[in-house]
Amino acid sequence: MNSSETALWLKARDNFLILTHRRPDGDTLGSAAGLARGLAEAGKTAYVLYNPETTARYEKYVQKYWAPDDFQPSCVITVDTASPDLFPVNGDKYTGSIALCIDHHPSNTGYAEFLCVDADKATCGEIIYEILMSLNGGVSAETAASLYVAVSTDTGCFAYSNTTANALRVASNLVDAGAPIGEINKAIFRTKAKSRIQIESMIISGMEFHFDGAVAIASITREMMAKTGASENEMDDVAAISNSIEDVVVGITIRELTGPEDCKVSIRTSSLVDANALASRFGGGGHAMASGFTLNVTVNELKRQLLDALGDIFPLTRDQ
Amino acid sequence: MNSSETALWLKARDNFLILTHRRPDGDTLGSAAGLARGLAEAGKTAYVLYNPETTARYEKYVQKYWAPDDFQPSCVITVDTASPDLFPVNGDKYTGSIALCIDHHPSNTGYAEFLCVDADKATCGEIIYEILMSLNGGVSAETAASLYVAVSTDTGCFAYSNTTANALRVASNLVDAGAPIGEINKAIFRTKAKSRIQIESMIISGMEFHFDGAVAIASITREMMAKTGASENEMDDVAAISNSIEDVVVGITIRELTGPEDCKVSIRTSSLVDANALASRFGGGGHAMASGFTLNVTVNELKRQLLDALGDIFPLTRDQ
Repeated sequence: MNSSETALWLKARDNFLILTHRRPDGDTLGSAAGLARGLAEAGKTAYVLYNPETTARYEKYVQKYWAPDDFQPSCVITVDTASPDLFPVNGDKYTGSIALCIDHHPSNTGYAEFLCVDADKATCGEIIYEILMSLNGGVSAETAASLYVAVSTDTGCFAYSNTTANALRVASNLVDAGAPIGEINKAIFRTKAKSRIQIESMIISGMEFHFDGAVAIASITREMMAKTGASENEMDDVAAISNSIEDVVVGITIRELTGPEDCKVSIRTSSLVDANALASRFGGGGHAMASGFTLNVTVNELKRQLLDALGDIFPLTRDQ
Repeated sequence: MNSSETALWLKARDNFLILTHRRPDGDTLGSAAGLARGLAEAGKTAYVLYNPETTARYEKYVQKYWAPDDFQPSCVITVDTASPDLFPVNGDKYTGSIALCIDHHPSNTGYAEFLCVDADKATCGEIIYEILMSLNGGVSAETAASLYVAVSTDTGCFAYSNTTANALRVASNLVDAGAPIGEINKAIFRTKAKSRIQIESMIISGMEFHFDGAVAIASITREMMAKTGASENEMDDVAAISNSIEDVVVGITIRELTGPEDCKVSIRTSSLVDANALASRFGGGGHAMASGFTLNVTVNELKRQLLDALGDIFPLTRDQ
């Protein structure tokens, strides 16, 4: 269904429960909150299924829509969720009985009775916006705030390469509708946890540069995690740091997992180097500019092996 | 003049020289480059006066429009420049003979023969966009790229509190017109100089927290500048770091200038604390959430005096 058909579908039904995905981000939570609010404005009963993995950063935008324990839905909807594997633990029981799935992932498995999937959209929030415009002819300031959380977070505040003209246009319309973007931007994009900023500082101060500065290798040890008290949630996008440095074409982040011989490696490259090919040499894989693998060796041994492999890519500036 | 009157004014003239402001940012350079290109597309001769302070980050977006040494303009235009004090050194000679000033600063002194000043706009780039739409009925991909640099940089990639619906809408239109925003965002917002990222790391690792984490004090010594090789251009917005940490309500950045007893202090606060009042106690001033002062004492003595003053603001959690 397209967005206006979906609006008609929603108009003909009531008592909605909305599911978000596991390890919920701003797009799934903001989309769910915005849809719940927009449906309420259309006179419907709609709640979001509590997601136990919701982080403090996003909780305030969604908690008022959590479903009461005794809520009996007539229709279960998922947002931003490509497959039932991604349902939160307490949502597993709805597998096989999803009435509607609203999503923007090209990998969506088509698991619901009705589908509103638009893979051209950078964010699920934009699809919810279209549906609510069709349903209600507009969005309230409250709905706009939730949808702005969705659209802005999935595009990295419009700085990621997935940002489209439509994402910017919807954001513009949400500001017109009253979304308090100054406040939201400050809380989400201009605030970091103390432990996150401290671990970033440690990552940078321990970063090694090789091949005339073309390769940066960052290491994150269990000791650094313990020292700063950084939680798993705060490690979001940490692999981007090494590759955000001027002139670096291969940014590598090595992370100690359960012990000193259990390492996860994230590779981020510019278009000059194939990240997938580099990871494949270690049994991993991924995309042309982002890949990874895990290996049961120490951080130092990993560095040695990586530098060896990189020597083939940068033969002229080989410095090891 | 409004933007359509300005377009008519430009249509009736030719041989334009466009001036940018001292310590040029993305808005003045992107606006100038976009206007020069848009005027060329309207069949005019237009150049940008070389600005000797242009940084490497922005040079590539404007250098092809630098005026030849022997160019004799008929009309001199300034963009994003509130007063003649802000002309670059080589632009001083045009003081008193500016034909048109296009600007968005409310503080514009009205120094030109004709003015197109719109203080409701977040960026000067948006005004240039309106003028060119009126002049040419559209913008080319090249012009759109320059104007996107202007609009995105002055709003901090749409994350600063000055971001408006119009800024987002113009950005959206520029993407539609072909601005390569993936490339521009990566270069401007997702890349940092190695020296910048290293000095940030040192600033964070040396940061002190007081009053239960409500106050963060960062120090930047001359030694840190020397060690990292960070240039003045790379210190942009460095005062925002201490105030970007969760729960910090007063972020203070102390910077050693010419010697150990010459310190500049920047204060950034949340709305809970009046930054201007705090700076006033030291003979400085500013706004409610951003202020500063300079004092001829050492970093350590400054910290002592600041903590003393902050003790009156945070009496319950005084920890000194």
